[in-house]
Amino acid sequence: MTSTVLVTGFEPFDGRDLNPSWEAVVRLAETWSGPLHTARLPCVFGAAIPTLQTAIEVYAPDLVVCVGQAGGRHTITPERVAINVDDARIPDNAGNQPVDVPVVADGPAAYFTRLPVKACVAELRSAGIPATVSQSAGTFVCNHVFYGLMHLIATRYPGLRGGFVHVPYAPEQVVDGTGPSMSIDMISRGLAIMLRTSLSTPVDVLLSDGALS
Amino acid sequence: MTSTVLVTGFEPFDGRDLNPSWEAVVRLAETWSGPLHTARLPCVFGAAIPTLQTAIEVYAPDLVVCVGQAGGRHTITPERVAINVDDARIPDNAGNQPVDVPVVADGPAAYFTRLPVKACVAELRSAGIPATVSQSAGTFVCNHVFYGLMHLIATRYPGLRGGFVHVPYAPEQVVDGTGPSMSIDMISRGLAIMLRTSLSTPVDVLLSDGALS
Amino acid sequence: MTSTVLVTGFEPFDGRDLNPSWEAVVRLAETWSGPLHTARLPCVFGAAIPTLQTAIEVYAPDLVVCVGQAGGRHTITPERVAINVDDARIPDNAGNQPVDVPVVADGPAAYFTRLPVKACVAELRSAGIPATVSQSAGTFVCNHVFYGLMHLIATRYPGLRGGFVHVPYAPEQVVDGTGPSMSIDMISRGLAIMLRTSLSTPVDVLLSDGALS
Amino acid sequence: MTSTVLVTGFEPFDGRDLNPSWEAVVRLAETWSGPLHTARLPCVFGAAIPTLQTAIEVYAPDLVVCVGQAGGRHTITPERVAINVDDARIPDNAGNQPVDVPVVADGPAAYFTRLPVKACVAELRSAGIPATVSQSAGTFVCNHVFYGLMHLIATRYPGLRGGFVHVPYAPEQVVDGTGPSMSIDMISRGLAIMLRTSLSTPVDVLLSDGALS
Repeated sequence: MTSTVLVTGFEPFDGRDLNPSWEAVVRLAETWSGPLHTARLPCVFGAAIPTLQTAIEVYAPDLVVCVGQAGGRHTITPERVAINVDDARIPDNAGNQPVDVPVVADGPAAYFTRLPVKACVAELRSAGIPATVSQSAGTFVCNHVFYGLMHLIATRYPGLRGGFVHVPYAPEQVVDGTGPSMSIDMISRGLAIMLRTSLSTPVDVLLSDGALS
Repeated sequence: MTSTVLVTGFEPFDGRDLNPSWEAVVRLAETWSGPLHTARLPCVFGAAIPTLQTAIEVYAPDLVVCVGQAGGRHTITPERVAINVDDARIPDNAGNQPVDVPVVADGPAAYFTRLPVKACVAELRSAGIPATVSQSAGTFVCNHVFYGLMHLIATRYPGLRGGFVHVPYAPEQVVDGTGPSMSIDMISRGLAIMLRTSLSTPVDVLLSDGALS
Repeated sequence: MTSTVLVTGFEPFDGRDLNPSWEAVVRLAETWSGPLHTARLPCVFGAAIPTLQTAIEVYAPDLVVCVGQAGGRHTITPERVAINVDDARIPDNAGNQPVDVPVVADGPAAYFTRLPVKACVAELRSAGIPATVSQSAGTFVCNHVFYGLMHLIATRYPGLRGGFVHVPYAPEQVVDGTGPSMSIDMISRGLAIMLRTSLSTPVDVLLSDGALS
Repeated sequence: MTSTVLVTGFEPFDGRDLNPSWEAVVRLAETWSGPLHTARLPCVFGAAIPTLQTAIEVYAPDLVVCVGQAGGRHTITPERVAINVDDARIPDNAGNQPVDVPVVADGPAAYFTRLPVKACVAELRSAGIPATVSQSAGTFVCNHVFYGLMHLIATRYPGLRGGFVHVPYAPEQVVDGTGPSMSIDMISRGLAIMLRTSLSTPVDVLLSDGALS
């Protein structure tokens, strides 16, 4: 029986023209063989989670991977943990800028991912794609959606597996050298590897990829 | 009534000769007027937390601030959240290198700090000292102690306030330019500001200092 | 009349398996329409320059572009200036480690490139490829070859145009996140743009791309 | 016979309130025992060099060290080479923004420093102060003054020794974490070490401190 997959990306934010997370998800959908659904989430606190939940309701996936842009990073970074706080350094696309508000009132402080992030990193590297586990998804809409997803899984969809991954800028976003980048093609291939690895790895491998600080 | 304070630093690790966290704590103790106790924690998974707990038992502090070295950072970084995982990129000082083991079996995924980190950052900056809130204390012994402290507070010392702060390398550790640094004198003055701010600020201020990713 | 081009890359060094400069030159040669010759230079002080000179003698090019790896950079960086010093932080591939020795005894302190580096950067960016002018080619074999090339032009081949460009790591060199990278495909397309721009731009454009320090 | 020293710093630029180069020079002058003169140079292309030259005429120094701010660096960086180009990424304090104009028409492409930069770096490190040789002083007013100084030495004051050193931001400039910093006290002590080392070291030591790229 083939597994159904839901992959989400984000609309552009912070005044940019594109978001590599969505571009890569579109590319991925063109090449993935099997039931795969996609959703483009608004970069808006509050609104992003219901959009995600609707997609989960409609598509009834076995696996959900949410993807977001992490400007400044140079590797694909599966996220380890979502924390229960919104703290926006810039306004979101609706002008909201929450500071130190919980994502879910009375929710736990954090949720760990339900993706085998160490196995994903190992497979990405084997394929020649730079990857590292990240210990923080930040406190903006990406972490907000990540926490929202894990809270939905914990409270409503106990059989669902899911998590979040951050990806670098696309080259065309940083032609003047503002930050490092990764081609949409490589990001898209990386996402496919993450999906395959997640579907085939029920229990994560033990592989050191922590941070000293 | 004057509050009693416990401040801890770490012994050197990773083959280094000094740890700026302990150097700064020693300097702080020489100048702080009021009841202040210090403890030097071993950089060892497992052993560090009992050492901390003993100091809490002996000194019965109102406030505990644990300090650690974050090589590569250039600001004083009060930590926002401790996560329930040990994942050691290098061995600790006893040769342990746990991978993806919980700090506390069956403990919650994370604890938020009980220090007013935004107020601390604001006061540090007002004093001319570079400071930012950090969203991750890593997965090595620093996060281990931070999580251990917050778990002790949650389960045994409900009235205790406490948290963790990372500090940069001291200049003498990186004379060849390996990374940025901050003088022990400035770190020590920064710790004093954090103590005073924590003692006088029961509820943290709302001040944006999050991260996009 | 079609111009003849010579493009050089380097062999791997510093214990690595590949050098993206040479990989990209090989890829470039497969797609360039017109007379293009390539040479793979040894990463050896002294020996690299005669190898380059022989290629110039044999192929009699109108344009020479030497390419090298700049680990840590995330853009294609045409170099502005070559300086008359060898100062090796690590041994070269023959075990030489010169310190503060001139490339050419009694040569001038520096030569500026004879490539239109500002026009190249503008065209690269227009094509969606991250690029910036670099003010220093270092003091290792890359700068050595760059200086050697410009000295040959100044003293023996006055009609020849030429210069140097540094390129980032290839992704497969840094899968564990050691540094940023750029795909060999993008580097190769970038080199083609640099060749076309150099051939069609006798006088460089005025475009700010300097450094404050 | 005691040597006379001239040390210069810059006025603030880029909209900032202070320039650590000048703050450190003022501090240095308070503690140096021996004939030391200082000059505060305008951050203006063209005007800065005559101001420097006037100071040389008036004070007749044996040694000139010009100091400038290098935002983003975390070490004291004696500069190895000045290049004959102005290329301003931002306007100077008079609104000038030259692009690819020589500092001195018909001047050589570059001048090497006449300071023993390797010996200076070694002595700074011995004193616990982070230091590295820099291969580029940029293309803004700092490099402009450096080149101007070396051209004056080459053409008018053949017995004069001199060079340039960049210093990090002061902590109070970057309290929000914009970049790394070094205390004015440490910068000032570092400058004193550079003066003493330069006066006592006629020929530089051989010590590897180059850059791969």
